[in-house]
Amino acid sequence: MKGAEKKRDDIASAYSAQWFERLGRVWVSALKEHFEQVAGRRSNVLNWALPTDNVELATRLVNTPCFPEETLEARFSKLANIILARGQNLHHPRYVGHQVPASIPIAALFDAIGAATNQVMAIYEMGPWATAVERAMIDLLGAEIGYAPGSFSGICTSGGSLANLTALLTARNQLLSGSWTNGLACVSDSPALVVQNDVHYSVTRAAGVLGVGTNNIVRIPVDNCRKMDVQQLDNTLSSLRRKQRLVFAVVAGACATPIGAFDPLADIADVCQKHKVWLHVDAAHGGAALLSAQHRHLVAGLDRADSIVWDAHKMLFMPALCAFLFYREKSHRLAAFQQDASYLFDPLDPGLVEYDSGVQTLECTKRAAAFGLWGTWSLFGRQLFEDLINVTFARTQRFYEMLLDAEDFQPLHQPQCNIQVFRFVPPLMENWPIEQVGEFQLKLRRSVITSGEAYLVPITLDGVGALRMTLINPTTEELDLACILDILRAHANKMLD
Amino acid sequence: MKGAEKKRDDIASAYSAQWFERLGRVWVSALKEHFEQVAGRRSNVLNWALPTDNVELATRLVNTPCFPEETLEARFSKLANIILARGQNLHHPRYVGHQVPASIPIAALFDAIGAATNQVMAIYEMGPWATAVERAMIDLLGAEIGYAPGSFSGICTSGGSLANLTALLTARNQLLSGSWTNGLACVSDSPALVVQNDVHYSVTRAAGVLGVGTNNIVRIPVDNCRKMDVQQLDNTLSSLRRKQRLVFAVVAGACATPIGAFDPLADIADVCQKHKVWLHVDAAHGGAALLSAQHRHLVAGLDRADSIVWDAHKMLFMPALCAFLFYREKSHRLAAFQQDASYLFDPLDPGLVEYDSGVQTLECTKRAAAFGLWGTWSLFGRQLFEDLINVTFARTQRFYEMLLDAEDFQPLHQPQCNIQVFRFVPPLMENWPIEQVGEFQLKLRRSVITSGEAYLVPITLDGVGALRMTLINPTTEELDLACILDILRAHANKMLD
Repeated sequence: MKGAEKKRDDIASAYSAQWFERLGRVWVSALKEHFEQVAGRRSNVLNWALPTDNVELATRLVNTPCFPEETLEARFSKLANIILARGQNLHHPRYVGHQVPASIPIAALFDAIGAATNQVMAIYEMGPWATAVERAMIDLLGAEIGYAPGSFSGICTSGGSLANLTALLTARNQLLSGSWTNGLACVSDSPALVVQNDVHYSVTRAAGVLGVGTNNIVRIPVDNCRKMDVQQLDNTLSSLRRKQRLVFAVVAGACATPIGAFDPLADIADVCQKHKVWLHVDAAHGGAALLSAQHRHLVAGLDRADSIVWDAHKMLFMPALCAFLFYREKSHRLAAFQQDASYLFDPLDPGLVEYDSGVQTLECTKRAAAFGLWGTWSLFGRQLFEDLINVTFARTQRFYEMLLDAEDFQPLHQPQCNIQVFRFVPPLMENWPIEQVGEFQLKLRRSVITSGEAYLVPITLDGVGALRMTLINPTTEELDLACILDILRAHANKMLD
Repeated sequence: MKGAEKKRDDIASAYSAQWFERLGRVWVSALKEHFEQVAGRRSNVLNWALPTDNVELATRLVNTPCFPEETLEARFSKLANIILARGQNLHHPRYVGHQVPASIPIAALFDAIGAATNQVMAIYEMGPWATAVERAMIDLLGAEIGYAPGSFSGICTSGGSLANLTALLTARNQLLSGSWTNGLACVSDSPALVVQNDVHYSVTRAAGVLGVGTNNIVRIPVDNCRKMDVQQLDNTLSSLRRKQRLVFAVVAGACATPIGAFDPLADIADVCQKHKVWLHVDAAHGGAALLSAQHRHLVAGLDRADSIVWDAHKMLFMPALCAFLFYREKSHRLAAFQQDASYLFDPLDPGLVEYDSGVQTLECTKRAAAFGLWGTWSLFGRQLFEDLINVTFARTQRFYEMLLDAEDFQPLHQPQCNIQVFRFVPPLMENWPIEQVGEFQLKLRRSVITSGEAYLVPITLDGVGALRMTLINPTTEELDLACILDILRAHANKMLD
């Protein structure tokens, strides 16, 4: 009888509102202290440890729950602080890494209401408010794109890669109407996927996933600003047509990942219209430029794409994951999936299906991923987002100027947004073979990031290594940028010694 | 100048540790009160409102941020309480709905550390601790499956549908090694996907997504317990072989969604082994039975599958989404994707790629989805999870007995786990045509759920409507089950009046 009582106690504790409150208070304090420390530059950026060491500790902890010897509160506090002490500190002003932001901390509070109460979608009745919030944000962002109300559709998915895959699946199904049911084996010749040469790997992967084959990707070269060469696109589409080769989509970037180059969307849309080809724009990063009066020219013509991916967990500074997929034609929302799942969709009220996400996305159970964006926007309004874009873009421009002014750094391009690729090339390296200079950048980066002093990413551009930074933390000040250069110099000099 | 100052204030507030703490305290209190109210049955289960009404309110709020007229704290409190007041209350003891649990509230605190600090994966260095925690849970759950350490691999993905798709992509690529690069157009005959007739729609969708075609799905009939008929599977595979038809996977369920039937996995594994066909088991719901000494017999043979999906956001009572995909052969982890993304994967340290999730999953940026499970397990240990399974399974058995005892209810099967399908059939309905009885169930359900008194789901079984409940909230007591029957009776009587 004692064992049985013990069992009921654990379930009761795990579900108790009182314990949630007590641990919740520990949670708030631990995070507050953490944010202060990180913002105050009193912590490392990346807490580097070997994966084997981290896995060993995580395994040891999960295999030795201490309750009831330890109080739940003490144990929770210990676990929370281990998580905070061993991660990547994106909120550190010297984090200038991947296109993953120092997210707005308050957004996580809205997100966590969804997590704590487990609000999900697939069908409207399982997440009525989650659905409404997502729909409100789709309407709002769709209006920013320039769509007329009611003419378009959108869906929120778990990540830009999934959104790109869904868009390309829809494009494949639109072109080859029998491919969903009959597969591609009945198609005499595989359709081509025409992409900007620098497109994200989730786009090229989609050709492999969808049964089209990665060999059927046709890459359009970029010009010297790494933008798609529109004349070449036109020539390629003409040539494919002459060969009677079907094209299921053209994919452009706004912006492409390497140096953040925005393709000339209006010109590309003209060419796609002429050739009657589906245009998909991966605006995962750059879609947010729409919100800035100063920068929205970068995405002029975006509204003419057939499908668009725009990640709120990039330049809308939301925690992962909150990716939006838009279709210019509302009817395309149902082109990908049409299947029986009678226990999901209620035949009694077919009008509700319009609000059932499950018929529009690869996901069945789906998080209430738009709570963070909706909540933050409802608190601060649109201006916050415009400011975030303007501040981070402007500071990247300033970083570019600092690189130009420095004798030992070389920017590889003028930034169009908040991405900058550059190299450390002091006078003594000027006669080195370029491959050796490239290798040095990658080694230099590893030395810096494992020290925890700053975090930036490696890139191989045209075969040669370089350093890449994304200014995706609005608290990164000019002084931090100068400091990052000094840190790179110090590590480089030690390596060159 | 005043405008500029205002701008900086908004960014500063959004990123301030102090504001995070103040709003965090509001957050904790609001959720504590909400959980108390819901657990005390003092709220509705589903807060029903028309989608158009909810969307209208969500749109109005996001378009009228009140700051600075309203304080941030008051505004946050208002928004949080609207979210809490208009959702689906899975923690209400009379929620017996979809296979989405009343999740362990404390798990959300761990999850929200990841969201607040935006810990993500794709590459190890972006989420060193997130990666370690995920790996520790894969090792732990893999051991529960019965795998030898180091022999298998696993990955955590955003949902069971995505996990099923990834597993079937791997199976497709293993059978047709050129399909990734060449596509399926070069294949003379589309391979078949052989599935248990009741398999989840994400599995059948995968045939459409992967270019195989849904017409190439071969369905194996179920026996009168709705389990896969193994003799028929054997016959079908033999017949396909005689026709020289390739089969890229057999998919079994543990359990299938309709009535929660567990396929005889060991027998199915024997047949698949004999025919040398990839066996995929969708154990999204039932994988958790492994943790119960009493119930693990249901999944005997699971360790012989080539790939397995097991959702922690179902019967491990985690908030969405935390789905695990396992491969019995470690080498299969890289079979799906192999591509260039030089800015992601550092050639300087190829050993680290083993810890880069991006090479194993469709996702690029990926949430630290295992924090909730790892933290909860590290607090309470394995016993909590065994108890949760035993309690919910036992109480469903009790519900079945209550249905048998009632004169006006009919269970359609004996429950194998925590899913029960049944109908309200009072004496006066016994002479009704079965279709009419079925329609009545669906109308009855809608009446009940929109009232907010209880929540259960509809199902059409062999063409006839029925009621379906999943006991996936450990606080649902026997009294609540009796109450749900009374609520159904009351609504039915009103409808029959």
